Amino acid sequence: MPLKRFAGGVGGTWQVERIESVTGPSLPQVPRLAVLDDASVIDVGAAWVLRGVTGYQRYVQRKEQEILHAKQPQLGRPEATCAALIPIAKSIAWWQLAQDERREIFEESSHHIATGLEYLPAVARELHHGRDLGEPFDILTWFEYAPKDAPAFEELVHRLRTTPEWDYVEREVDIRLAR
Amino acid sequence: MPLKRFAGGVGGTWQVERIESVTGPSLPQVPRLAVLDDASVIDVGAAWVLRGVTGYQRYVQRKEQEILHAKQPQLGRPEATCAALIPIAKSIAWWQLAQDERREIFEESSHHIATGLEYLPAVARELHHGRDLGEPFDILTWFEYAPKDAPAFEELVHRLRTTPEWDYVEREVDIRLAR
Repeated sequence: MPLKRFAGGVGGTWQVERIESVTGPSLPQVPRLAVLDDASVIDVGAAWVLRGVTGYQRYVQRKEQEILHAKQPQLGRPEATCAALIPIAKSIAWWQLAQDERREIFEESSHHIATGLEYLPAVARELHHGRDLGEPFDILTWFEYAPKDAPAFEELVHRLRTTPEWDYVEREVDIRLAR
Repeated sequence: MPLKRFAGGVGGTWQVERIESVTGPSLPQVPRLAVLDDASVIDVGAAWVLRGVTGYQRYVQRKEQEILHAKQPQLGRPEATCAALIPIAKSIAWWQLAQDERREIFEESSHHIATGLEYLPAVARELHHGRDLGEPFDILTWFEYAPKDAPAFEELVHRLRTTPEWDYVEREVDIRLAR
């Protein structure tokens, strides 16, 4: 599976605007963030490195997948000069739930996919799974958007954090970036 | 997540009775297999090592989970002197399916969980996920059973291999062990 590393340090394309804890311990402050694929061996003076794989879809159903494929933009759009990296870890209680219970909380109760769809194509998104790698965060979500869509992005993040799904989030850090 | 390594070599608790390819390339023949947890640094003269994490359930629903918890035996029963390690890799087509499509093939069409339940408590089982780790096999399934249950185990394996789910298996190796 394609592995990405997000390295917080003194190098990289992205300037860090802020790093804030939402729940649990934050990450050390750094001035820049580099996004590296598996093969990169660039020294970015990293204070910390988060890893995740862009794996298969864990909850998305066929009809949702079709809409997502039709509406979601690629990463790297020239106008999308804002980005966010939001690492989260969910509780043991979440991971011990059966698949249908997690799906129900994720979508039928919390409308995670449906809510995200409302912000397409403004907000591009990529998921990286770290749990099987033994990483401190289960999921790293990377977002890219244009400055004019920043208010919409704030709204999206706020809405998700008030859902039942977020009761299971025991650590969340919000890292905002610009290039 | 707890990571296990299955090391084929000249050391380890398990004597290898046979290693056979079911689909695709086999693994090199070795006389013994060691099952190591993450922390082990024992030199077992390994010719190959397969890794996987015992993660959360990918397809099991709540009602199935309850039955599994009630019926499935622990590993390490004294009478269970036979074991099998069956590594499989599924095709890209499988992993590109949406969650509900994979679940439907897995259970509603192929009855993977229901079939396994018929062989409980005779056959103990543990799943290890290797896909996110970049391993050559997506799933390593470890089975333990008593010699008297060997015919039942052969039947279980045969039944699963004739299901629609197995159309997506592009590599499978069958490793039989005894201690």
